[in-house]
Amino acid sequence: MSGNMLGKRFVVLSFGESHGRCVGAVIDGCPAGLRISESDIQSLLDLRRPGQSIVTTQRKEEDKVEILSGVYNGYTTGAPIAMLIWNKDVVSSDYNKVLETPRPGHADYFARLKYGGFNDHRGGGRFSGRITAGFVMAGAVALKLLKITLGVEILAYSKRIGGIEAKPTPIESIREKRWSNDVRCPDEEVAESMRQAIIEARAAGDSLGGIVECIAINVPPTLGEPVFDSLDSDLAKALLSIPAVKGVEFGAGFRAADMRGSEHNDPLGIVNGRVAPLTNNAGGIVGGLSTGGEIVVRVAFKPASSISKPQRTLNVSKGVMDEVVVTGRHDPTVVPRAVPVVESMVAIVLADHALRAGLIPPVLRGDAG
Amino acid sequence: MSGNMLGKRFVVLSFGESHGRCVGAVIDGCPAGLRISESDIQSLLDLRRPGQSIVTTQRKEEDKVEILSGVYNGYTTGAPIAMLIWNKDVVSSDYNKVLETPRPGHADYFARLKYGGFNDHRGGGRFSGRITAGFVMAGAVALKLLKITLGVEILAYSKRIGGIEAKPTPIESIREKRWSNDVRCPDEEVAESMRQAIIEARAAGDSLGGIVECIAINVPPTLGEPVFDSLDSDLAKALLSIPAVKGVEFGAGFRAADMRGSEHNDPLGIVNGRVAPLTNNAGGIVGGLSTGGEIVVRVAFKPASSISKPQRTLNVSKGVMDEVVVTGRHDPTVVPRAVPVVESMVAIVLADHALRAGLIPPVLRGDAG
Amino acid sequence: MSGNMLGKRFVVLSFGESHGRCVGAVIDGCPAGLRISESDIQSLLDLRRPGQSIVTTQRKEEDKVEILSGVYNGYTTGAPIAMLIWNKDVVSSDYNKVLETPRPGHADYFARLKYGGFNDHRGGGRFSGRITAGFVMAGAVALKLLKITLGVEILAYSKRIGGIEAKPTPIESIREKRWSNDVRCPDEEVAESMRQAIIEARAAGDSLGGIVECIAINVPPTLGEPVFDSLDSDLAKALLSIPAVKGVEFGAGFRAADMRGSEHNDPLGIVNGRVAPLTNNAGGIVGGLSTGGEIVVRVAFKPASSISKPQRTLNVSKGVMDEVVVTGRHDPTVVPRAVPVVESMVAIVLADHALRAGLIPPVLRGDAG
Amino acid sequence: MSGNMLGKRFVVLSFGESHGRCVGAVIDGCPAGLRISESDIQSLLDLRRPGQSIVTTQRKEEDKVEILSGVYNGYTTGAPIAMLIWNKDVVSSDYNKVLETPRPGHADYFARLKYGGFNDHRGGGRFSGRITAGFVMAGAVALKLLKITLGVEILAYSKRIGGIEAKPTPIESIREKRWSNDVRCPDEEVAESMRQAIIEARAAGDSLGGIVECIAINVPPTLGEPVFDSLDSDLAKALLSIPAVKGVEFGAGFRAADMRGSEHNDPLGIVNGRVAPLTNNAGGIVGGLSTGGEIVVRVAFKPASSISKPQRTLNVSKGVMDEVVVTGRHDPTVVPRAVPVVESMVAIVLADHALRAGLIPPVLRGDAG
Repeated sequence: MSGNMLGKRFVVLSFGESHGRCVGAVIDGCPAGLRISESDIQSLLDLRRPGQSIVTTQRKEEDKVEILSGVYNGYTTGAPIAMLIWNKDVVSSDYNKVLETPRPGHADYFARLKYGGFNDHRGGGRFSGRITAGFVMAGAVALKLLKITLGVEILAYSKRIGGIEAKPTPIESIREKRWSNDVRCPDEEVAESMRQAIIEARAAGDSLGGIVECIAINVPPTLGEPVFDSLDSDLAKALLSIPAVKGVEFGAGFRAADMRGSEHNDPLGIVNGRVAPLTNNAGGIVGGLSTGGEIVVRVAFKPASSISKPQRTLNVSKGVMDEVVVTGRHDPTVVPRAVPVVESMVAIVLADHALRAGLIPPVLRGDAG
Repeated sequence: MSGNMLGKRFVVLSFGESHGRCVGAVIDGCPAGLRISESDIQSLLDLRRPGQSIVTTQRKEEDKVEILSGVYNGYTTGAPIAMLIWNKDVVSSDYNKVLETPRPGHADYFARLKYGGFNDHRGGGRFSGRITAGFVMAGAVALKLLKITLGVEILAYSKRIGGIEAKPTPIESIREKRWSNDVRCPDEEVAESMRQAIIEARAAGDSLGGIVECIAINVPPTLGEPVFDSLDSDLAKALLSIPAVKGVEFGAGFRAADMRGSEHNDPLGIVNGRVAPLTNNAGGIVGGLSTGGEIVVRVAFKPASSISKPQRTLNVSKGVMDEVVVTGRHDPTVVPRAVPVVESMVAIVLADHALRAGLIPPVLRGDAG
Repeated sequence: MSGNMLGKRFVVLSFGESHGRCVGAVIDGCPAGLRISESDIQSLLDLRRPGQSIVTTQRKEEDKVEILSGVYNGYTTGAPIAMLIWNKDVVSSDYNKVLETPRPGHADYFARLKYGGFNDHRGGGRFSGRITAGFVMAGAVALKLLKITLGVEILAYSKRIGGIEAKPTPIESIREKRWSNDVRCPDEEVAESMRQAIIEARAAGDSLGGIVECIAINVPPTLGEPVFDSLDSDLAKALLSIPAVKGVEFGAGFRAADMRGSEHNDPLGIVNGRVAPLTNNAGGIVGGLSTGGEIVVRVAFKPASSISKPQRTLNVSKGVMDEVVVTGRHDPTVVPRAVPVVESMVAIVLADHALRAGLIPPVLRGDAG
Repeated sequence: MSGNMLGKRFVVLSFGESHGRCVGAVIDGCPAGLRISESDIQSLLDLRRPGQSIVTTQRKEEDKVEILSGVYNGYTTGAPIAMLIWNKDVVSSDYNKVLETPRPGHADYFARLKYGGFNDHRGGGRFSGRITAGFVMAGAVALKLLKITLGVEILAYSKRIGGIEAKPTPIESIREKRWSNDVRCPDEEVAESMRQAIIEARAAGDSLGGIVECIAINVPPTLGEPVFDSLDSDLAKALLSIPAVKGVEFGAGFRAADMRGSEHNDPLGIVNGRVAPLTNNAGGIVGGLSTGGEIVVRVAFKPASSISKPQRTLNVSKGVMDEVVVTGRHDPTVVPRAVPVVESMVAIVLADHALRAGLIPPVLRGDAG
């Protein structure tokens, strides 16, 4: 228990359930003086809102954020910022069978075991991807804070879905095009293939996994507090908190395992007048510290666990194998909607570390934002 | 700063430097009543000790652990357990050039930048792999605690080195054979190939990367405190604290990104009289909770950054590109010596979560250990 | 910043402002399976509600608590419990002068300095006593948890107001009579004198201080985690978080400073079949651990800072001394309304420590509550 | 468990036992670039060293501090600073009776109960006042850090011993004279009376309590992170971690309970060119924030529990009342030796908060110290 807080200096507390009254977050530790409004948050939240496309769940939610505290006259006050969205389009009857035949790939059974059956199982409760709406609320604040104070930019996009991978794309294209299609892939040709693959998988009652790549630009060097609060450690922790994530890698990542030192080592040089690595196999982090180069992290998502195809699983009441057909409205892949969530988690961790390093002051001066 | 503590209930603080007086760790939160002695710790520590083989660094250190507090009459007391090894075979003159031509792939330059030049750069200081000796001290206590109280067993081994991968190996063989050769690979044939590859790389003044796989057996279900202190989140954080790690994945991991839901979902069934997944694509963790199945995590290590081959890098004093030849005694690959470190990090996280879940009491009864 | 969380295992996060949209709290770490409803919380909250008596502020607030998350089917789920009350009777125009002539005894000026003027100063913002409504919400849950699981009872009352002190009162009388009058003093005769003193002070445009005593009964022995998370350390911290508190003492407290060891030492004996101190100069805590005896703590409150009498203070705009007359609706003494707040803080700390000690399990079995 | 760490940014971990191998502390989070040596620490440690005077215990310990890590070339590196003293003059046989007839006023019995008998009971183990040597090591570093960076000065002294109280003393006299006598009281006449009272109590086989007052000067305004990490909250917590403390008060403290608002409120004015309270009933803290005025805190110590006079207590083996005569070497009052400990705790908390507020940078520039 008490595992719903992330960060040491920019602390995010997550609350709410998929089919409860609301989903939200509280930030404790945001500096005072950041100009922020509900619309700043809404724009990011809209990017993960369900019901917008054939490639996502058909649950229709307005997901309109409300700021309950910590903002006054349009600026953060230094006090905790509580935010939430109300749940509206809830169809909980779909979930009654979960208790009897727990859905493969879901935490249904184990959550029930852990919480003695007291957990709110409807829609997955705390284990639902819907909880990440709260991550995005906090992430939107972190993103604005990082942008205003340090010029940091965070760009995530769908790198790979269903085995189809985007070609290497220049930063400018990623920035411009990743939101232009509903699979969130800046490579437009590949995006269309991903889209078709998702539609096909949905039609087959199945689902797809994929990889989100996230690039953080203009991150100042030396963020990270080794040995345990290394920047990559904290990023990995935050990213693995997103439901369905099964792996995280930085820079060359798992490929680095097959490289030789002479190949992998990034020589230092002068870049834009500053000492920095000339190549980026390290993904912008060396020894747990940011190098000032682009932080490159890839996040592997398993295929969505909710599929309409019949599946064999245990009937826990009867103790025999049974068949389960997961009804309800689900994403045929979580990857596109996860893109703003990945950005949010990276932003939260970078904001936390920039504050820990003293690179963002406790009170912003000037007209911040 | 203040990033040298890991865990919430079984808290490990790391201290010491590569070429300072000592390297150590303090555990705050170990239950009282665990029978522990220096020899329990020494046996694991010996497995990461340098200077033992041609595949590791030639630095000769006795690495004899001393327990300074928290153990009385052979049992833990519930008080902080401070432990250390003294540094002896220190040759610091090797590191003087580091200040001028920072070694590619190392944190030398960024550490200097972060700490204003006050950091102890000798041998990499806090960024040295030697710091993990402290992780192993704490890990040895965690391993014994988990074994005695819950019967948990943690088995790591070299899965892949220099592109050479061990064939799938049954648990019994992993248990028996992983320590039988100096590359820590239970597949003996492959072990010999890895060994040759390492020797060849060393001869070429180069280094190799690889993958350590770690399997945790008998982990009780429902460990993990979602959403942020998910078991996989905390494992990933701990593992990425090990120097040279660039990626972590669970179960099918990055392969899961290319799977379909119907393929990846592990159906539930009855295993050994208990509800459990019948397959293990999830790697023993679903929704951030352990399932009771084997926890399978793979850790990607980059090739060791210290290579004797000349490398181009910046001469930061002169502001021009220069050549650096890294002298000193170094590991041609960190993978074999990282195996006990991976086990230690997994053990520390599992002990922390077992305590958080109340599955290990604050005082052990009976003759624990 | 990020100082709005209390506890390690039963963590309370406070949010909201006096004149913002709401005041609330989130509990992260409450066990699953506690039967709880808004009415359980409301009854304690009503005891601190303003506008109920001539001895308190005339601000009229319904203070109707809403549980937003973490409770399902009438029981806690193990997920974060977010709770709040909406602010309604807000008259913020009263506070405009605060910016020019900061009120003596208040944090107005220093809050403005700390938060660069971005803080919500209306009604004192985060520094208002109204924030303690959130403490009480969390406290009500902690109280029920402690009562159901361990039979702990926590009884606070006004011991002294304006120099008038209640005579020593048996536990039974405290339990029965402390809520029977609006000054929250079980000694009814003294209560009436206190009441008159408060009315007189209010009439004089002045205010009174006092002492709240709190007794916790049936606290199991050995709660507390020395050396720094001693039970008395954590109680003192929590109690000093209540606005207007200037001192805390346990058992004989400051009187102990004048005693001799032979007088002060509580001999051990057998009480109710259990080894326990026969006297209680220690106030139920020895070496930072509960003894099983009554925990006795006294909390000194300064006189309310808001008084209608004209006061000299600095005009910070003009840089000259000026006169301030604090308008608005205020408590002539905070002591009576602080009584449920003191109970709440003691409950939160005891719940946190009972969970840390493993005396309350993460899931309550049976029909808890 | 895991209660041996204090602070969020300047974190102090305490380890060691009274009769174990050593007593020490680790600081995680001290900025890099502070010039520090063992002699800086030794001078404060010497002020609490035992065996120096007739008014203290006759245990002879050299208490020579060793810095094990985190300092290089005479400056802090930003890495954890581990420090310790070795125990030498240990006479543990004195403590064998403790198991049978627990000493009144001591934690012997409750520690045994909490830790299942596994605790190191010798000399009180972790509950011994000797543990505070570690507090002083960390405190000495904090004191130097505060002095160098902010000019903060912390002056504690014996205000009252055995009912004998020092007259109000100007700061200059406190600074000059508090270390000039062995009772640590700057009022020399009263010091002599205190000294006689202690000698008399010791001769009578008894002990005395007292009050330490601590004044912190030049503390910058707005330290403290309300609502829960208020400056007074964190000071109170830290001070109550010192063995034998039973109460803490700020400014007028418990006297404030009897004052009226018009009397207690400190008007603001201009002091040394800065807005500040003109009087100091608040003790330098308002709303949990430092005001820039002197922080004044008083700490009540109970009489030392170890007295040689025979006392009645339970024989826990036999279950009958028995007589205990506490042998061993003990302080007839802990007050004089607690003076540097109080300074240390105040310094640790102020350093933590100055770092949290960004008033001390993570790396000190110039020649710090």
